[in-house]
Amino acid sequence: MPQHTEFIPPAGGIADCPLCQTAGGEIVWSNALARVVLVDDPAQPGYTRVVLHAHHAEMTDLPAAQRTALMALVWRVERVLRDVLQPDKVNLAALGNMVPHVHWHIIPRWRDDPAFPDAIWAPARREPASDEARLGALGRYREALAAALDAGAAPA
Amino acid sequence: MPQHTEFIPPAGGIADCPLCQTAGGEIVWSNALARVVLVDDPAQPGYTRVVLHAHHAEMTDLPAAQRTALMALVWRVERVLRDVLQPDKVNLAALGNMVPHVHWHIIPRWRDDPAFPDAIWAPARREPASDEARLGALGRYREALAAALDAGAAPA
Repeated sequence: MPQHTEFIPPAGGIADCPLCQTAGGEIVWSNALARVVLVDDPAQPGYTRVVLHAHHAEMTDLPAAQRTALMALVWRVERVLRDVLQPDKVNLAALGNMVPHVHWHIIPRWRDDPAFPDAIWAPARREPASDEARLGALGRYREALAAALDAGAAPA
Repeated sequence: MPQHTEFIPPAGGIADCPLCQTAGGEIVWSNALARVVLVDDPAQPGYTRVVLHAHHAEMTDLPAAQRTALMALVWRVERVLRDVLQPDKVNLAALGNMVPHVHWHIIPRWRDDPAFPDAIWAPARREPASDEARLGALGRYREALAAALDAGAAPA
C-alpha cells in the first residue's frame, strides 16, 4: 500500500519540529489524522508509534473526536502487537518533552528486555535479548498491523 | 466529599496486587470504574494517577466502553492539571511492568524538574526545584480536580 506509507509534510508544520518534518519511523499505515510508524529499536522489536499529523503539544489541545480517533488507533496497534508478538506487557506513553508534538509510544516489553521492569527510559539492567523468533515475527507484525488498520475494526 | 475518598478493596481483587489492596495514593475522587489519586512526589507536584478498580493488565483487556470512560477521566485530569498548575508539558503513561493493573500516570513536567526533558523514570539531571508557588497550588489543584470530576464535563 504505497499510498499509505509515504511521508508528506503536513501543511502548517513547524520548521524545527522533527515530527512535522519527518515521518518519525517507518510508516506502516496512515490516514487523514495520524500515521502509524515502526521504530527501529533492536532492544524493543515491535516498538510502534502513533503520530498525529498536525502539530499540537497535548491531548487536551485536540477536539474530543480527534482524541477518540487517535486512541482508537492506539488500541488497534496494542491489540495486534499483543496478538502477534505476545509481549509480557505493553507500555503506552505520550511524553513529548523533547518533541512536543502529540505522538503515542506503544512498546512491547519482555521480562528479559534491557530495562524491564523499569520504563524503557530508565538505565538498562542487561543487554538486549537476541531472540530470533521475536525478531522474526516483525514481518508478520507489520503485515497484520496494516491489515487491521485497513479493516478499521476496533478491538472489542 | 468523604464518600468519594475512602478506599474499598474491589471484590475479586488479587491478593498480591498493590492496586487491588491499596488506593495507590490519596484518593481525590472515584466512581464505579476508577479512582483518581494524588501521588506524593515532591519532584513532580501534582503527579496524579487514574487507577482502574478492577484487576486487568492491559487497556485492550477492557471493553471499549470502559476504555473510553477511563480515558475521559485522564483527559479531565490533564485539563485541570494544565489549567491550575500550568506545567511546561504533561506526560501520560500506562506502563504496569511492576504492577500489571491498569493505571494511568498524568505527570506535570517543568523544564527545571529533575529529569526533564527525559522521562521521569530516567536518571535525574538536577535536584527537585523548590518552587513555593508550584507547591502552594496543590490545594487549589485538588479542589478543582474534585469539582471538575464531580461536574463530569469532558474537555471540549
